[in-house]
Amino acid sequence: MTINQRDGKMKLALQMVSGYGGEFKTWRMPGAVADAYTNMDYYVENAKMAEKGKIHTLFIADTPALPNDLSTNSPMHPMDPTIALAAVARETSHIGLVSTYSTTYTEPYNLARTLKTLDIISNGRMGWNAVTTSNHEAAANFGRPLPDRDTRYEMAQEHIEAVQTLWGTFGQDAYIHNQETGEYVDMSKVELANYRGKHYQTRGPLPIPASPQGQPPIFQAGGGDKGLELAGRFASGVYANPFTKEDAKLHRMMLRKSAEAHGRKADDIKMFAGFMFSIGKTKEEAMERRYMMQQFAPKETAHHVEYLGYMVGLGLSVDTIDITKPLPQGLINQMYPSPMDPRSEKAFELLKTGMSVKDVLANGVINYHPVVVGTPEMVADFLEEWYLADATDGFSIVPDSSHDGIKDFVELVVPILQERGLFHTTYEGETLRDHLGVSYEYGLTY
Amino acid sequence: MTINQRDGKMKLALQMVSGYGGEFKTWRMPGAVADAYTNMDYYVENAKMAEKGKIHTLFIADTPALPNDLSTNSPMHPMDPTIALAAVARETSHIGLVSTYSTTYTEPYNLARTLKTLDIISNGRMGWNAVTTSNHEAAANFGRPLPDRDTRYEMAQEHIEAVQTLWGTFGQDAYIHNQETGEYVDMSKVELANYRGKHYQTRGPLPIPASPQGQPPIFQAGGGDKGLELAGRFASGVYANPFTKEDAKLHRMMLRKSAEAHGRKADDIKMFAGFMFSIGKTKEEAMERRYMMQQFAPKETAHHVEYLGYMVGLGLSVDTIDITKPLPQGLINQMYPSPMDPRSEKAFELLKTGMSVKDVLANGVINYHPVVVGTPEMVADFLEEWYLADATDGFSIVPDSSHDGIKDFVELVVPILQERGLFHTTYEGETLRDHLGVSYEYGLTY
Ligand SMILES: Cc1cc2nc3c(=O)[nH]c(=O)nc-3n(C[C@H](O)[C@H](O)[C@H](O)COP(=O)(O)O)c2cc1C
Ligand SMILES: Cc1cc2nc3c(=O)[nH]c(=O)nc-3n(C[C@H](O)[C@H](O)[C@H](O)COP(=O)(O)O)c2cc1C
Repeated sequence: MTINQRDGKMKLALQMVSGYGGEFKTWRMPGAVADAYTNMDYYVENAKMAEKGKIHTLFIADTPALPNDLSTNSPMHPMDPTIALAAVARETSHIGLVSTYSTTYTEPYNLARTLKTLDIISNGRMGWNAVTTSNHEAAANFGRPLPDRDTRYEMAQEHIEAVQTLWGTFGQDAYIHNQETGEYVDMSKVELANYRGKHYQTRGPLPIPASPQGQPPIFQAGGGDKGLELAGRFASGVYANPFTKEDAKLHRMMLRKSAEAHGRKADDIKMFAGFMFSIGKTKEEAMERRYMMQQFAPKETAHHVEYLGYMVGLGLSVDTIDITKPLPQGLINQMYPSPMDPRSEKAFELLKTGMSVKDVLANGVINYHPVVVGTPEMVADFLEEWYLADATDGFSIVPDSSHDGIKDFVELVVPILQERGLFHTTYEGETLRDHLGVSYEYGLTY
Repeated sequence: MTINQRDGKMKLALQMVSGYGGEFKTWRMPGAVADAYTNMDYYVENAKMAEKGKIHTLFIADTPALPNDLSTNSPMHPMDPTIALAAVARETSHIGLVSTYSTTYTEPYNLARTLKTLDIISNGRMGWNAVTTSNHEAAANFGRPLPDRDTRYEMAQEHIEAVQTLWGTFGQDAYIHNQETGEYVDMSKVELANYRGKHYQTRGPLPIPASPQGQPPIFQAGGGDKGLELAGRFASGVYANPFTKEDAKLHRMMLRKSAEAHGRKADDIKMFAGFMFSIGKTKEEAMERRYMMQQFAPKETAHHVEYLGYMVGLGLSVDTIDITKPLPQGLINQMYPSPMDPRSEKAFELLKTGMSVKDVLANGVINYHPVVVGTPEMVADFLEEWYLADATDGFSIVPDSSHDGIKDFVELVVPILQERGLFHTTYEGETLRDHLGVSYEYGLTY
C-alpha cells in the first residue's frame, strides 16, 4: 500500500457548527451576529464566503438533541441541517454540502428521499455523514433506549445499504421526459429495492433520478474498530480528530487499509482531520483574541484551569494559583502528561516553557481539535506540516468565530496555501465527488 | 352556530403537485417545462407567480411512495416537499407554505424540528397537513404493515400532540442572545416535553425558538369520522374534496361543529374545497385545451369512457361507440347516476343534454375535484357561487398545467374576484396564521 497524495493538494472542509463558530462564546464578540442561529441569510453568507475561498465542502455535525447548555453558549448544531443545506444549495454553485444524519434515528426511505433531492437541486454536491448517534438524550427524544454499540453499527450498515439500494432503484437513464414521444419515465429501468435487513426493510422504488454525481458520497466520523470497518466499506470521506501528526498518520493508514480490505481503492477514502484556529496579524493579536473569549467565559476558564491540572497530574484551581503567571517551579517539577488525554503532551510542553497558565489555555490545549493561535502563516505552516507528512488528506477546519474567522481563513490563509502549491485554485469539477477525487457511484456500493 | 364568512373574502391555496400541474399529461403541452419535477428554479418561479396573485398559501400533497405509473404521466408529488418549501421560503416573502407529512411514517422529533425550522426561516409562514397515510406501498417502504385505521388515527393524535409539545418546550421569550449581558438562552424557560403516548414518546426539549406565528398551524385532509374528529381537535385548515355545493356545505358545517365540540372557535377552522380548472379566452378555447390533453393520453381516454359508462350504469367502450357523437337515445334512456360516485350526477346531466362523450369527458367529470372548463369569468362564477352559499371558506386550486395555468389564474381570474370584492387585494399580515385569520398558538393546543 502506497501513501498517495494524488495531486499534492490538500482537501478542506468548513465546519458550519450552528452558524457562529466552534468557540461557543464568540457570539458576544464585537462584529458577531447575535442571532446567527436563526438567521439563514447569515448562514448562506458564510457558505458563500467559503465558496469564494474554494473550500471543497461545508460540513455540518449533528445530534438530534439539545446539544449543550445554552445559558451563555451558542449551540453546537444548526436548527436543522436539511433546511440550512437546502438554502445553501440554492444560493451557491460549487461548494460541497455534507451533513450528518443518524442511522439509528432516521428512516431509510425518508432520508434517501431527502438526500437525493438535495443532490439533485445542488447539481451533485451533497454528501452524507452517516453516524450511529451514541447520545442518550437523543435516544430519549425518540422514546427508545439507546441500542448497544454492536447493534447500532449493525443498524448503520443496514441503513446505508437500504438508502443506497433505494437510490439505485431509479435507473440512471430512466428519466426520459421526452415531450415528442410522450415517454416520461422508462419504467423498465425502475426497480423495487426489496431491501430486507434485520433492523430495516424497504420496498421502494424511490422515484428520483440520478444526480450529476450519481448519488451522495458517504462520510463517516470518528474512529474505533466499528467506525473504521464502516468507513472502509462505504466512506468516501472521514471526519477524524487526531491530536498528533502520528495519530493522524496511523488513522489514515488504517482507513486506507480498511478500504482495501473491502475491495476498494485506498484513494477513494479521504481523511479530514479536525483543526481549529484563531488568527491575528501577529501572534500577540491572536492571543488577544483568545483572551477576549476567555473573558466572556469566566466560569469556563475556572473549569479549564482544573482540567489543565488533571492533564499534567496536578490539582490546580483559580483560587490557589495566579493564572497570569507561570506555574511555580515546584509544581512544574511534579508534572507529567496524563496518558488519558491525547492533548496532555502539548499542555505539558507549554507549561514547562514557563508560559503563564492563562496563555497555555489561550493556546487552545483543551479544544476539541488541535488549535493554532497565531498568524495566517502559522496556520498554513501547521496544515502544510501535517499534509506533507501524509498524516491526512485534508482538514475539517473550525473557525473560532464565523463573523471574521471564515473571511480571515479565506483571505489570509488560502492564498498562502495556494502560493505554496498546497491548495487548488479552482474547483476540480462541478460535483462533490469531483472535488473529493472519488469515483462516481450509483446504487449499492458494497 | 352561525355561518361566519368573516370579511367576506375567500381563502385560496395553490396545489403545487409535482411542479407540472394536476393533469398528468400536460407536461407535453407546448410551453410546458419538461423537467419541472427536478427543476427547482421552475418550482420557485411558480410559487412567486402565486404570491404575485396574493394566493394565501401553497399546498403540497404527499405520500412517501411512488405515487403513480410514470411511463407517460408526471408524478403526483414533488421529489421532497421539505426541500421544495425550503427553497420557496427563501425566495418568497408572504405566501404560506403548507406541506403534507405522515403521522404514521415520520418521527415526531425529526418532524417537529424540520417544521419549526421552516417556520423560522419563512418568518412564520409554515403549515403542516397531518395525514395518517393509508397507502400500502408507503407502508412497505417502511417495512411495516399498515396499522389499521383506528390505530393510525390514535397515532395521528399522539404524533401531533408530541410535535406541539416539543414546539412548546422552548419558551416564547427564551431566546435572549444579548451580547451585553452574555445571556444566550433563558434556560429557565426551556422545558422537557416528556411526552409519553402509547405509540410515540419524546423527551425534548427542542432547542428552536418561536416563530412570528408561534408555531405552524395544523391542516387536515379528507373527511370521515376520524378525520373530522382530528380536524376539530387540531386543524386550522382542512383540505376537502366535495363534488357538490351541498356536500361542501355539510362538510364545512361538520368541521365547525367538531371545532366547537373541542372547545375551539368555529372560525378557527377554514375549509379549502379542491377545485380544478382549464382556462381559455372562450369556452371553445378551453375545450380545445382539454382535447389536447386527451390527445396526449389515448389509453386514458379509453379507460375514462369505460368509467363514464360505469358512472351512468352503461357498458361503454371506445370500440363500440363513436365518442365524438352524443350517446344514442336508446342508451340515454337507460342511464341512471351511480350512487357509488359523487361525480355521477354531473356526468349524467351532461350526457342527457346530448353532448358528445368526448366533450363530457373534456368537461372534467372524472377529475379528482370539480372542474370548470371555460373562461376566467366562468371560473370566478363557480368560486363565487360556492363561497357565497357558505359551502366553503376557500378553495385549494389545482391548475391543469403549471406552465400557464397559474399565470392565467393569477392574471385573469384573481382580478375578477377582487373586483367582485370576493378576494383580498393584499396579504392580511406577515404570517400564515394572519392570512388564514386563525389565532396565534404555541405548544400543545388541545
Ligand atoms: C471528529 C468527530 C466528529 C463527530 N461528529 C459526530 C456528529 O456530528 N454526530 C454524531 O452523532 N456523532 C459524531 N461523532 C461520533 C462518532 O460518530 C462516533 O459515534 C464516536 O466516535 C464514538 O464511537 P463509537 O460509535 O464507536 O462508540 C463524531 C466523532 C468524531 C471523532
Ligand atoms: C382532498 C384530499 C387530499 C388528501 N391528501 C392526502 C395527502 O396528501 N397524503 C395522504 O397521505 N393522504 C391524503 N388524503 C387522504 C386523507 O388524509 C385520508 O386518509 C383519506 O381521506 C381516507 O380517510 P381515512 O384515513 O379516514 O380512511 C387526502 C384526502 C383528501 C380528500
